[in-house]
Amino acid sequence: MFQSFEVTSRPEQGPPRLALLRAQMRERGLDGFLVPRADAHQGEYVADHDARLAWLTGFTGSAGFCAALRDVAGVFVDGRYRTQVKAQVAPDYTPVPWPETSLPEWLIRHLPGGGRVGFDPWLHTVAEVERWGLALAGSGIQMEQSNNLVDRIWADQPPPPMRPVKAHPIEFAGETASSKCQRLAGDLRAAGHRAAVITLPDSIMWLLNIRGSDIARNPVAHGFAVLHDDGRVDLFMEGSKLTSLRGHLDESVTIRPPETFLETIAALPGPVRIEKSSAPQKLADVLGMAAVFGDDPCALPKARKNRAEIDGSAAAHLRDGAAMVELLAWLDAQPVGGLSEIAVVKQLEEIRRRDNALQDISFDTISGTGPNGAIMHYRVSEETDSVLQEGHLLVLDSGGQYLDGTTDITRTIAIGAPGQEERAAFTRVLQGMIAMSRLRWPRGLAGRDIEAVGRMPLWLAGQDFNHGLGHGVGAYLSVHEGPQRLSRMSMVPLESGMILSNEPGYYREGVFGIRIENLLVVQDATTPPGGDAEREMLCWKTLTFVPIDRRLIVTDMLSRDERRWLNAYHGEVREKIAPRVGKSAQMWLDAATAPI
Amino acid sequence: MFQSFEVTSRPEQGPPRLALLRAQMRERGLDGFLVPRADAHQGEYVADHDARLAWLTGFTGSAGFCAALRDVAGVFVDGRYRTQVKAQVAPDYTPVPWPETSLPEWLIRHLPGGGRVGFDPWLHTVAEVERWGLALAGSGIQMEQSNNLVDRIWADQPPPPMRPVKAHPIEFAGETASSKCQRLAGDLRAAGHRAAVITLPDSIMWLLNIRGSDIARNPVAHGFAVLHDDGRVDLFMEGSKLTSLRGHLDESVTIRPPETFLETIAALPGPVRIEKSSAPQKLADVLGMAAVFGDDPCALPKARKNRAEIDGSAAAHLRDGAAMVELLAWLDAQPVGGLSEIAVVKQLEEIRRRDNALQDISFDTISGTGPNGAIMHYRVSEETDSVLQEGHLLVLDSGGQYLDGTTDITRTIAIGAPGQEERAAFTRVLQGMIAMSRLRWPRGLAGRDIEAVGRMPLWLAGQDFNHGLGHGVGAYLSVHEGPQRLSRMSMVPLESGMILSNEPGYYREGVFGIRIENLLVVQDATTPPGGDAEREMLCWKTLTFVPIDRRLIVTDMLSRDERRWLNAYHGEVREKIAPRVGKSAQMWLDAATAPI
Repeated sequence: MFQSFEVTSRPEQGPPRLALLRAQMRERGLDGFLVPRADAHQGEYVADHDARLAWLTGFTGSAGFCAALRDVAGVFVDGRYRTQVKAQVAPDYTPVPWPETSLPEWLIRHLPGGGRVGFDPWLHTVAEVERWGLALAGSGIQMEQSNNLVDRIWADQPPPPMRPVKAHPIEFAGETASSKCQRLAGDLRAAGHRAAVITLPDSIMWLLNIRGSDIARNPVAHGFAVLHDDGRVDLFMEGSKLTSLRGHLDESVTIRPPETFLETIAALPGPVRIEKSSAPQKLADVLGMAAVFGDDPCALPKARKNRAEIDGSAAAHLRDGAAMVELLAWLDAQPVGGLSEIAVVKQLEEIRRRDNALQDISFDTISGTGPNGAIMHYRVSEETDSVLQEGHLLVLDSGGQYLDGTTDITRTIAIGAPGQEERAAFTRVLQGMIAMSRLRWPRGLAGRDIEAVGRMPLWLAGQDFNHGLGHGVGAYLSVHEGPQRLSRMSMVPLESGMILSNEPGYYREGVFGIRIENLLVVQDATTPPGGDAEREMLCWKTLTFVPIDRRLIVTDMLSRDERRWLNAYHGEVREKIAPRVGKSAQMWLDAATAPI
Repeated sequence: MFQSFEVTSRPEQGPPRLALLRAQMRERGLDGFLVPRADAHQGEYVADHDARLAWLTGFTGSAGFCAALRDVAGVFVDGRYRTQVKAQVAPDYTPVPWPETSLPEWLIRHLPGGGRVGFDPWLHTVAEVERWGLALAGSGIQMEQSNNLVDRIWADQPPPPMRPVKAHPIEFAGETASSKCQRLAGDLRAAGHRAAVITLPDSIMWLLNIRGSDIARNPVAHGFAVLHDDGRVDLFMEGSKLTSLRGHLDESVTIRPPETFLETIAALPGPVRIEKSSAPQKLADVLGMAAVFGDDPCALPKARKNRAEIDGSAAAHLRDGAAMVELLAWLDAQPVGGLSEIAVVKQLEEIRRRDNALQDISFDTISGTGPNGAIMHYRVSEETDSVLQEGHLLVLDSGGQYLDGTTDITRTIAIGAPGQEERAAFTRVLQGMIAMSRLRWPRGLAGRDIEAVGRMPLWLAGQDFNHGLGHGVGAYLSVHEGPQRLSRMSMVPLESGMILSNEPGYYREGVFGIRIENLLVVQDATTPPGGDAEREMLCWKTLTFVPIDRRLIVTDMLSRDERRWLNAYHGEVREKIAPRVGKSAQMWLDAATAPI
């Protein structure tokens, strides 16, 4: 099993560790110290070595930080984790609603006379430190760079990850590393930049056509890279990770020991580009006047998938869809009341693992039944594991990391015969999902410009959901990839080749949850008869092919066009998936995809 | 008649005037001079005194400018005016597509060796001058403040407007001027600003509950005002305009001669707020270090209409709707081929003028039949006047300035029996218009976040239109009022009380045009049964009640909900308007609002 259901957090471990940290603070004359969830690469997952926040506080969520002062320790968590944090941390820690309360506001309240607060400049971004500076001006509070005090007191801290890096074959990458480096070097020259420091692991993996396994769920290796404006790359990574790779990287890539990273970039002639919202403050300090701020040069090129990446993703989705259909057929064959959330996760992972290309799951499967389905980022554990009961909706959100692509799919499944309110809400979520899937739109629009389309059916009923409609997805890379998003926060124009999720939902706290998610790829739309020939428009091509639970649809609520879309989609699911599943799953599939 | 159909522009007058201007330039050692459409108040309409661009070049559009150099004179016009400008200016003038080509780019191209370009600092905003500075850095081109050279050569320049100002009664304003001044002074104090200079006439009119008639179509008087942080106001306006007003303004308002404006603001203690994108550069110069940039303090409060303003607008719309119904009934009774565009405009204005509260039309009526309907900002003249012919669509976009409110309505009318493509496109435009009218959305969203809803039906057919979905509208003030907009450009959250137009369209160049427009007011939505009680949502209340041409609707294309909306709307139109029109119009109305 990739996924574990163990309860790893033990609140009682927190207070003695906090006492040790405070002793370190006192020794250095600090009034506070920051312990973020983030590592130096600002990813969603961190290696065990970097799990400082969880070690210190017990809180295991994927975002947040602790601000430990001498007599209060705030644990800042966002809306997803308000319940979880209470269960995971000891009373010595005070949960703080974030971003409603910002760190500077909170510090000013708790250090009214000012003070010195330490932070590790590798773990906080340039943008973060800049925001603190503006907000703390005149408060008497100094943010001071420091060694990481947690690393000093964490006796059995696991070593940094050191797993082997593998080549990502050209048949899946679709473009050689040297072509990418040359192309991006041209962008740097056009911008007048001599080099760019790349700190995001998925950018480095994409640029050099390599994949790693330093952290769970994401096929990346930790390291830093410098892309020069002539296409040369310095890769700062432990040589021991790269032994199987030597033939793959051509002479334009120089592997350098990580300990030479800072001295190397300090010697670079400027301007050197770094990305403000992901680069560690440490880099801005070392680069000094040579630093200029701009986008990660890989971000947009990586987001625009090429033909091989799209074909690979499509292929991965068909196999992943077959696994899901096997799971759903199996699930429906179990007696109501006979399964728990964990049993479903285990069965799904077991089926997915039959595929040789599967390298990992793409995130911990969310399997929430009944009230647990209303917890948007629910992660089932032995303590919370619940039985799928008559009338429940099961929200099952999962995905795989395959050599040829990354998948992410959510289906909401009827257990027995759910009630009318559940079915009506499900139908509205489906209507939003269909409306977005069917959309065509003029080139140049961003996620913000079209997100409403996927929410409108809920809005009309006075309902909504508190997450974005969709996120970018990588090609055998991060399952949450920027900069493309279907969200009010995203002003980045959508472009052909970008892969995004389309996942409206609905959550009634303590009662039930619903989410339906397909992955889609943006493509150029052809002009239909009667359309404006001069307009360039974009549309979606669906990657995910798995039935949507017909038992939860109130057919009368659907328009003719919505029904037509659903039946056509189900026809395509049947056609593509039936040849890939066993006999009994085929029979289940026939029924599950029958027209409505 | 308010509206005139005369062709006022005579291209042949341009060249001798340009020669005079160039002589002035030479005398001052200038290589160029800018002549904008704008006056010092940056409004959409200008007084005859300020119509310098039209006088110099012949171009009468509502936006643009001329950059006259020694051997080339560019007339910068946006997409709406590309055809018109060619007909209106002599070959000595070169039309420049704007904003595709910016002024700095064009200057750099035509003054490769640098040069001195003069401009009148009253007619260009702080933001504009700032943009030039950034874009021209290093080009050797200097932008130099100058007296207005056009005013020196324009022998018979009309004097500045000097029409009387009237009190706007409290029954329509809903809040006293002193209450508004006190409220806004509180905002200034909260921002730490000592005063704000208000340069937009509609802001001054709103703040002091007065209305003027210095320019056509907008009930405003020219002047400037300073709002102090204690609620006092200095109003810089010719006393002769204000004679009928003395009792209306209380002692907190001091009327000062316009010629004392600059010396008064120069003496203000800072910080003094001005709005960058509307305040003349002259003010920033005079204020110097005392200037701070921020929103016009009246902008948002004016946009949020109070109960009296909404009720007044609704009442004006009912009377205006009755006028439109009389017009439409009359129009349908004429033989096909018997009417011209101008005849329709004249008849409509004649009917509107029967209402004693009508002060003006709110803009020159757009009456475009057949191919003319595809010209989005078509203004019919004696030269372009066309006959309404069998199979045409007539786009009729008009409005009135009533004492109790401003109206703006577009209907597209079938002349005879238009073709299937026209009807299909009309139906899609209607579907977008209905979708926006029916929308509910979470508080906090801006026009940008929901505009797609009104375009989606066109997008699905590969069609779209090149203007925003809607604009803000004033309460017996500007028919185009900011900052609220239903547009991709607008990030201002929509708020209860804002009035906006909802006007999707479709234009096939050289063939036909379609637009359907209602005015709507934002209001708080109540939670429907089953809706999320904790969510604050907004919705629309319709102000406009005039039938939508059923002959142009392809009924089969409408969903059940769309049909239901249309029939309910038409039922309401019939109920509200029938008692207000004559017998034959009543009969017409019955048929025009019959359910489909």
